Amino acid sequence: MTGNKSNFPDWYQAVVREADMAEPSPVRGSMIIKPWGYGVWEQIQKDLDRRIKETGHDNCYFPLFIPLSFIAKEAQHVEGFAKEMAVVTHHRLKMIDGKLQPDPEARLEEPLIVRPTSETIINHMFAQWIRSHRDLPMMINQWCNVVRWEMRTRIFLRTTEFLWQEGHTAHATRAEAEAETLTMLEVYRKFAEEILAIPIVAGRKSAAERFPGAEETYTIEGLMGDGRALQCGTSHFLGQNFARAFEIRFLDEKNEMVHPWQTSWGVSTRLLGAIIMTHGDDQGLRLPPAVASIQVVVVPIWRKADEGEKVLVAARSILLALENAGIRAKLDEREGVTPGFKFNDWEMRGVPLRVEIGPRDVASGEVVLARRDTPGPPGKSKSAMNEVAAHAAVLLGEIQKNMLVQARAAMEANTHLVTSYDQLRAQMEGEGGGGFADIYWCGNPACETKIREDTRATCRAIPLNQSHPPDKCVVCREAATERALFAKAY
Amino acid sequence: MTGNKSNFPDWYQAVVREADMAEPSPVRGSMIIKPWGYGVWEQIQKDLDRRIKETGHDNCYFPLFIPLSFIAKEAQHVEGFAKEMAVVTHHRLKMIDGKLQPDPEARLEEPLIVRPTSETIINHMFAQWIRSHRDLPMMINQWCNVVRWEMRTRIFLRTTEFLWQEGHTAHATRAEAEAETLTMLEVYRKFAEEILAIPIVAGRKSAAERFPGAEETYTIEGLMGDGRALQCGTSHFLGQNFARAFEIRFLDEKNEMVHPWQTSWGVSTRLLGAIIMTHGDDQGLRLPPAVASIQVVVVPIWRKADEGEKVLVAARSILLALENAGIRAKLDEREGVTPGFKFNDWEMRGVPLRVEIGPRDVASGEVVLARRDTPGPPGKSKSAMNEVAAHAAVLLGEIQKNMLVQARAAMEANTHLVTSYDQLRAQMEGEGGGGFADIYWCGNPACETKIREDTRATCRAIPLNQSHPPDKCVVCREAATERALFAKAY
Repeated sequence: MTGNKSNFPDWYQAVVREADMAEPSPVRGSMIIKPWGYGVWEQIQKDLDRRIKETGHDNCYFPLFIPLSFIAKEAQHVEGFAKEMAVVTHHRLKMIDGKLQPDPEARLEEPLIVRPTSETIINHMFAQWIRSHRDLPMMINQWCNVVRWEMRTRIFLRTTEFLWQEGHTAHATRAEAEAETLTMLEVYRKFAEEILAIPIVAGRKSAAERFPGAEETYTIEGLMGDGRALQCGTSHFLGQNFARAFEIRFLDEKNEMVHPWQTSWGVSTRLLGAIIMTHGDDQGLRLPPAVASIQVVVVPIWRKADEGEKVLVAARSILLALENAGIRAKLDEREGVTPGFKFNDWEMRGVPLRVEIGPRDVASGEVVLARRDTPGPPGKSKSAMNEVAAHAAVLLGEIQKNMLVQARAAMEANTHLVTSYDQLRAQMEGEGGGGFADIYWCGNPACETKIREDTRATCRAIPLNQSHPPDKCVVCREAATERALFAKAY
Repeated sequence: MTGNKSNFPDWYQAVVREADMAEPSPVRGSMIIKPWGYGVWEQIQKDLDRRIKETGHDNCYFPLFIPLSFIAKEAQHVEGFAKEMAVVTHHRLKMIDGKLQPDPEARLEEPLIVRPTSETIINHMFAQWIRSHRDLPMMINQWCNVVRWEMRTRIFLRTTEFLWQEGHTAHATRAEAEAETLTMLEVYRKFAEEILAIPIVAGRKSAAERFPGAEETYTIEGLMGDGRALQCGTSHFLGQNFARAFEIRFLDEKNEMVHPWQTSWGVSTRLLGAIIMTHGDDQGLRLPPAVASIQVVVVPIWRKADEGEKVLVAARSILLALENAGIRAKLDEREGVTPGFKFNDWEMRGVPLRVEIGPRDVASGEVVLARRDTPGPPGKSKSAMNEVAAHAAVLLGEIQKNMLVQARAAMEANTHLVTSYDQLRAQMEGEGGGGFADIYWCGNPACETKIREDTRATCRAIPLNQSHPPDKCVVCREAATERALFAKAY
C-alpha cells in the first residue's frame, strides 16, 4: 500500500481507501461504507446484538425525526447538542424561478431535528409506557443512523452521519440503574477485547467529558497506534435527569409516584476506525478473525494451463472443507493477476489467514498457511490438504488471541507512570504521540484544564479498578485518591 | 381483542396496538416499531438478507442526506418525489428571543434531502466506480431508513419514515439487467410465499404505476383480507435513464464508451402490514412460524402451589427441549394472570403454537399442543412430554404450509374472471371489497383511467404468465392480448 505508519493520518486514510472499506461522500462529512467495511460492521452487529439480547434487552425502532421542543427539554442535553443538529424545515420541493427549492408553502410548523441520539423521543414514550413498578425495568435497544453536524470530520472516527446501537433503560431504583450502567460497560469491554482484539481501559469519565444530561459517563477507552486515545464506547448513568424533564413517573411498591432511574449506552461505526488504528501495519489492514468477512483466502498458484486445472480442483475442495467447518472462506480465482498481486491485495485488506496452493503442493498433498498477524517465515506453516480446515480453525483462534496480546503489549509499552508535571509535559511532547499518562489527579477541573491547555491531553478514563494508596495530584500537589489516564485523543 | 374484521380499518389498528407491534409517534406519520413488531422485521431481514447475498449482492451503506442537485438530475424521478421530501436547511439551533430555533447563520448553501430512495446518490458514486466492463456487474444492497412525506399515513402501510432494503445494480447489457430485474422479483415472490406465507401475483406494472425513472416496474402483489390489493415489493428495470442522468459510462469489450443498464428493487416494513392483513383474524394476529420471534409458547396451568412446582419443572424441561431443537420458544411464567388470559394474550400476538401443561398432564406424561392456525378442537393434539420438540417441529412446518394454503384459498376466492365492464363495476361495488378483477385490458391508459375514475380500482399487475388467447378489452372492446389484475389498493 501507499504510505506507512510514520505519517499516521495519511496512512489511516490510505488503509481506509486501499482496503476499500469506505470513502468520503459528496455530502459534507458523510461516508459511504463499502462492502469490505460494511462486512466488518455486520459481524460486529451480529455478535454484539447477541450479547445485548442475552442481557435482557429487546430491539425496537424509534423515529429518525425528533420535534425541536423535545430536544429543548433537558437543559444540559440541548446545550451539548444544539450546535451540531441537522434541522428539517420543509416537506416539499418546488420549482421556483426555474430552480428547484424548498417550497415556502410547505414549511413545517415546528422544525424537526434529525436525531443526534434518541434519549428525548424515547423518554417521551417511556412517560406513556411506564405506569407501575411492574413495567420496570424497561430495557430496549435500537440499531440506527444518527446525525451530528461535526465541523471537523474523519472517516469512521467523526462523521456527520454514523451507524450505531443505542440502548435505553429505566429502573425502579438507583442501585439497579447503576448496576445496569456497569453491566453494559462490561459487555462492551469483553466484546472489544474478545471480538475486536482491542485492549480496553474501562473507567469513569471526568465531568468535562460527560454525556450532556448524564450524571456519570463510563467509557471503554482504547489506545491507538499513534499513541492517541480513542473512546470506543460509552455507558451513561442518567440518574433521574431525563425522567424529570419528560415527567416519567411510576407507582412504586410503597404506592408513591416516583421517577425511574435511567441509563443509555452505545457503540458506533467508529469501531471500524478503532480496528484500523489498533491493528493496521505498513502492509495495510489486519482484521481479527472474529470480524473478518473472509477469514481465510485460498490463493491458487500455477503457470501452465494443465497445472492450473489440477490446482483449482484441489483449491475448490479446500474451500468446501473450510466452508463446511463454518469458516468464512474465499477462493481467489481471478485471472490476469499474479499470485503475488493477490497476496498483497488480501494482506492489504487484512484477511487473517492465507492458504497457498501450487502444483508441487498438490503433488505432495501439503499446502502452505500464512498468518497475517505474523510476518515472514515464522507466520508460515504446512498442513496436509485434508486437514486444512482443522488447522485453519486452530490458527484463527491463535491469531485472534495473538492480536489482542500484540495490541495489549503496544498499549502497555505506551502507558507511562508519570509522577511529575514536567514529566507529563515531556511525555506529551515526546515521541510515541504521548500515549496514556497514568497520573494522580485530585479531580479538580482546574488541573484538568491546565493539562489540556499545556499539553492537549485530556482525561480519558478514571479506571474502575483503583488499588493505589492516596498521594498528591501531579498538577497542584493537593491530595489525590485516584489515578487517571490522560492522553491526546481523537 | 377489541373489534373484528367486519370493520377492517379499525380491526387493523387494533391488531397493531393490542399485539403491541407498533404505535404512532409524536412525529407526524412516523411510527415506533415495538419489540414484538421489530422481532418480526428481524426475522424478515435475516432470511431475505441471506437470499440477497446468495444471488451475488454485497451490503453497503450510503448517506441519509442527498444534495438537492442530485435529486433534480433525473426528470421523472424528481417529478415523482419532489412533493414528498423532507428538506434539511440548517445545521445548528440557536436561542433567539428566548426560543430555540434554526440558526439563520447556519443555513446550508445547498439544501439536503432526506433520502426517499437512493438511486441518485448511488448512481453518482457508480459513475466514479464504473470504468470498464470488468467492473460490471456491480450489485449492491443496503438496509436503511427512508423518508417520504406522505399526506395520508397508516402504520406500516404508508408512513413518513420506513425501514427497507434497496438493491441497486449495473450491468453491461440490457439482457443481463432485465434478467436481474426478474431474478429479484422471483427472490421476492419465493420469500413472500415461503416465509411470509403470503400468496403473490408476480407481474408487470402499468405505465401509470411505474417507479419514477424506471423503464419497467415489476411487483409482487398480495390481496389483503378486505379484498384490497397491497404492493408488497417492487423490482425496477431502469434501462439507461439514471446512467444517462449521472453520466455513468464504461469501456465495453469493443472498446467503446457506453452506458450500463440498471435495476433497483426493494421491500419494506410494509410487509409487517401485509402479514397482519393477510393472516389476522378476529382473535388478532397470526404469525407464520418462519417470522415469529416466539414460535412456541409454553403455558403452565395449576391452582395449588405444590402443583405449580411440579408443573413448572416439567414446563422448563419442555422449554429446554424446544430450544435445543432450534425452536424459538418461551415459557410464560407470569404470576397474577390466569392461564386463560395467557392463552388469549399469545393468540392475539399470533404465536403459532401453544403447549398447555397442567398437573394431570405431568401425571400422564402427555401435554396438549394447540395450533393458532386451526381454531378449536381440530387444532389440538397430544404429545408425549419427551417428544414435544419433535412434534412441535412437525406442526410448525404444517402451520407454515397451511397458512399459505389458507391465504391462497382466500385470494382465489376473491379473484374474479370479469368479462364485461358492467360486471367489473358491480364487482368493485359488491361485498368482499372488490378483490382482484382479472380482465382483458388493451393496455391503453385511457381505459385504465376510466376504470379508476368509475371504480377506484387500479391496475395492480399484468401477470408474467399469460396463456390466454387474444380477446377484447373489457373497457373499450378493442383488441387485447393480455389479461391484467385490477383492484382497489392500499
